[in-house]
Amino acid sequence: MYESRFRRDRGLPEKVSVIDVGPRDGLQSEPAYVSPEDKIALVNGLIAAGVRHLEVTSFVSPRAVPQLRDAADVLRGIDRNRGVVLTALVPNEKGAERAIEAGVDAMVVFMSASESHNLKNVNRTRDGSLAGLKDICRTAEAAGIDVYGAIATSFGCPFEGDVPVGEVVKIAQAYRDMGITKLSLGDTTGMATPPLVAERVQALKTDVPEADIALHFHNTRGLGLVCVYAGLMEGVTRFEASVGGLGGCPFVPRATGNICTEDLVYMLDECGIETGIDLKKLIEVSRRIEGVIGRSLPGQVMKAGHRLDLHPMDSVRTANG
Amino acid sequence: MYESRFRRDRGLPEKVSVIDVGPRDGLQSEPAYVSPEDKIALVNGLIAAGVRHLEVTSFVSPRAVPQLRDAADVLRGIDRNRGVVLTALVPNEKGAERAIEAGVDAMVVFMSASESHNLKNVNRTRDGSLAGLKDICRTAEAAGIDVYGAIATSFGCPFEGDVPVGEVVKIAQAYRDMGITKLSLGDTTGMATPPLVAERVQALKTDVPEADIALHFHNTRGLGLVCVYAGLMEGVTRFEASVGGLGGCPFVPRATGNICTEDLVYMLDECGIETGIDLKKLIEVSRRIEGVIGRSLPGQVMKAGHRLDLHPMDSVRTANG
Repeated sequence: MYESRFRRDRGLPEKVSVIDVGPRDGLQSEPAYVSPEDKIALVNGLIAAGVRHLEVTSFVSPRAVPQLRDAADVLRGIDRNRGVVLTALVPNEKGAERAIEAGVDAMVVFMSASESHNLKNVNRTRDGSLAGLKDICRTAEAAGIDVYGAIATSFGCPFEGDVPVGEVVKIAQAYRDMGITKLSLGDTTGMATPPLVAERVQALKTDVPEADIALHFHNTRGLGLVCVYAGLMEGVTRFEASVGGLGGCPFVPRATGNICTEDLVYMLDECGIETGIDLKKLIEVSRRIEGVIGRSLPGQVMKAGHRLDLHPMDSVRTANG
Repeated sequence: MYESRFRRDRGLPEKVSVIDVGPRDGLQSEPAYVSPEDKIALVNGLIAAGVRHLEVTSFVSPRAVPQLRDAADVLRGIDRNRGVVLTALVPNEKGAERAIEAGVDAMVVFMSASESHNLKNVNRTRDGSLAGLKDICRTAEAAGIDVYGAIATSFGCPFEGDVPVGEVVKIAQAYRDMGITKLSLGDTTGMATPPLVAERVQALKTDVPEADIALHFHNTRGLGLVCVYAGLMEGVTRFEASVGGLGGCPFVPRATGNICTEDLVYMLDECGIETGIDLKKLIEVSRRIEGVIGRSLPGQVMKAGHRLDLHPMDSVRTANG
């Protein structure tokens, strides 16, 4: 198989873990409420397609994110018998307690690499956030639940512009010092580029060797999958994406948000990299959620199908060239 | 600059030539007629933004592609005083004569790597196409005009599926034997993947070392810029794209067509690769043509702006995480 040879020649990983964050990061920016039944069907569909790690919801204040007010109900409805890791975003102690009660496998804490985005997002300085995270970690530890750490604006901040790599490293070190080593670098508003990906991953490998890095890209400027490719070349094996490309960008109404899970899986398949996910089933899930949402989602493979889905010769008039 | 270091470390080229094919490949699939004035403004805008090579139109039968029936008028209106190369697609002898009369700098001949796509597209076998191309080459030579060769379905065929690399090599050799060495590998329906790009470029470098390769990707399955990145890593320095992502896929109504020029230029800029193109001006051109077309184009950077376009902190409510 030329794909496997290509993968080996290029030093790309053999296996990658695809984390679907659509039910959380995707849905949270949808203005129309999606019922718990539809959310559960979405998550169960993803699990049936082979996704083994999902960020399913967020235990934030229901007033702040009304879309996810049904977090506990959704968790209750999910098919948990397939070795799946279900995580949820947790902003504070109270959220941590709700998440534990609802039975998450791990909770995801977060803060921004840039001060102004952190202030804007959670109304705290970064130091204030770090102090709060310590309490969450203690609560989680007492409950025997794992904590993952997300670093928003890891590749740039919409208010400040470039974010020095040292800021990302500092937060990764602070996380590590609290015992959090499963890190996710968030490209909150789609500012990542291949050189920034290489720079940040290399810096973390050197300065926080304990870190198990996931990359979370947005396709806001069209470079989402290129940045994944750059990450693969640095040896990263965990990537976050959203089914159908669900979600958007709060800064630019017409821009896209998270990279699309099917497009990512299609790319990995074609590069000879295993994901354990059935692309056909995944496409069905994404077409179903598009029906629920009621507008066209950014995913490309869900529209065009697999490259080897053949067309009958009488199906179209082609245009020369 | 970390971008230039990244570029050097990765062996990426220092400079790339971006060929805008939007006025031809993009517009030809637009159902509503775009006036010659708007087409001329588009091409002149691209030239003013620094694009130095454009495929501006097609001398096909006006009945087959009514959108481009104004080919000669458009060529007459273009600002030709900046060392720009203007090419046009030419399907046959008659088209070649019209192209020469209209004053193109070079003409682009084409055929498909797969037999069924060639039959469907130009109603000839590949051997029939090659025979016809010989006549075009003689006509062009007599007029002292350069001929470029495009190979459609170079990465797969919508009717046949995979296209063996040997078929692409054979056509490239036939082109070379006619004196055509400026080749473009067309990803007609968005079937290219990074391993296929590497395989095909390497085969041509070995078997047709005279070939000066351009890559022409469609973003139908989301991998357009990833394939450019794979091409850059193989040392390719010429890429075709369409301003705003103008165009579509005749096989899938909702799918995108050509990769978007601004998104490509943005990626190259951010990787420290020179294009000579002013991204800001290019974005203005693409927003103008979006207004002319009257529907949202697939380009991302034209919507989201540059990554360092800052947002005021009171501009939005952010969503946690």
